[in-house]
Amino acid sequence: MSGITSIFVIGAGNVAQHLASSLAHHVKITGIYSKNGENAKLLSKQLGIKHQSSLFPIPECDLILICTNDDAILPLINELPKDIKIAYTSGSIELPNLDNVGVFYPLQTFSKDRAIDLSKVPFLIETNKDSLKSDLKNLANKISHKVLDANSEERKKIHLAAVFINNFTNHLAFISKDILQKNQLDWELLLPLLNETVSKITDGDPLNVQTGPARRNDTSIIAAHQKLLEEDQLNIYNSITKSIIKTYN
Amino acid sequence: MSGITSIFVIGAGNVAQHLASSLAHHVKITGIYSKNGENAKLLSKQLGIKHQSSLFPIPECDLILICTNDDAILPLINELPKDIKIAYTSGSIELPNLDNVGVFYPLQTFSKDRAIDLSKVPFLIETNKDSLKSDLKNLANKISHKVLDANSEERKKIHLAAVFINNFTNHLAFISKDILQKNQLDWELLLPLLNETVSKITDGDPLNVQTGPARRNDTSIIAAHQKLLEEDQLNIYNSITKSIIKTYN
Repeated sequence: MSGITSIFVIGAGNVAQHLASSLAHHVKITGIYSKNGENAKLLSKQLGIKHQSSLFPIPECDLILICTNDDAILPLINELPKDIKIAYTSGSIELPNLDNVGVFYPLQTFSKDRAIDLSKVPFLIETNKDSLKSDLKNLANKISHKVLDANSEERKKIHLAAVFINNFTNHLAFISKDILQKNQLDWELLLPLLNETVSKITDGDPLNVQTGPARRNDTSIIAAHQKLLEEDQLNIYNSITKSIIKTYN
Repeated sequence: MSGITSIFVIGAGNVAQHLASSLAHHVKITGIYSKNGENAKLLSKQLGIKHQSSLFPIPECDLILICTNDDAILPLINELPKDIKIAYTSGSIELPNLDNVGVFYPLQTFSKDRAIDLSKVPFLIETNKDSLKSDLKNLANKISHKVLDANSEERKKIHLAAVFINNFTNHLAFISKDILQKNQLDWELLLPLLNETVSKITDGDPLNVQTGPARRNDTSIIAAHQKLLEEDQLNIYNSITKSIIKTYN
């Protein structure tokens, strides 16, 4: 039986940190390498393993897990030996046509110093070869209850949806805070509203719980809001307002 | 001592429902009237009071609380007697220059059949006269721990910020769900990400926790996403992406 019992991690950012810490309870992490040597040193220390200061020689391992920025992934795969299994954690990079390479994508936003319950995080797996797929799924199952197949096309769509619900929601919160702070108003006032907004989305269907001036097509309030906004915020206001009005008409 | 011990409620929608139910524990609700007779009948029945089928004659009360749509508020105030205290619950309508009229604005999104802990909801109060202000603040303090002064200008800004964080966030969730469902993908996959997104916003500063392709100005992923989106979604994607890129450059 094959199976993955040892991993060499490339990258030492937030994803590497969370995955390596969690995987270390189940498999042996035989090295951590990052272009950012300081981060790799720190993470190696946290996990109690030897810091790997250069990519080569590759330490003994069943799998190389690439947790770098998207741009670095394909160049790294080209550099690495073709006889070692490789997986990468990106939501966007299409799977190359190689038998030894697969995708190991955790659908979550990872931050420094924020604990994440990985058991609830969906892991999306893709490979060209069934044996690698079962290896990666077995590995993911050790740390998560939600392991799924997703091909590159599906993964790209899921990543796009994630950009809307995570990156863009965060920027809307930034704008809300900006509007309040520029007027010496307390941003914390909005937090009960934010929490209820998300509870409604989670418990129901966003289509049915939409409220507000755009939902009512209340043109006089919309016009008053438009006068209060700077250019970039106004463009966002207008694009979302238009889309809401069209959705409900 | 004056104080408000009895209230006549106009409107029977979500705001009226939540406020009347909660206020009924502290003051006497002497009537509920709504243009939508069925809603008013239902709410009256829930509260165990007589249904008021016409606006006039006004039942005996210390305060008339207008919980209608924004458009109806000023016409109603014109119709109502000038010697009775009046308050309305809108975030957007400017306070008219009348001594007997004030604002009693709960900063929250209310839905049918969803319990809300009003004690955490900020109530924003505005009046032209100090005695009415203290009456409305005392009333709000009976149901909430967070009662504040806000003038019309401030209230308008807060309402605008609320539109971004509530209405617009909900529409982004709608788009995320739409992208997944059109591709036969499970929308529930995104809920752990949504919850973590909001925890990060609540615990930290949205400015510091922004991630994603726009934050990294990753033009190749942005271009790939743009190809996947329909017109209205693309306009939203572009406006928010542009704003994120500008914020961090």
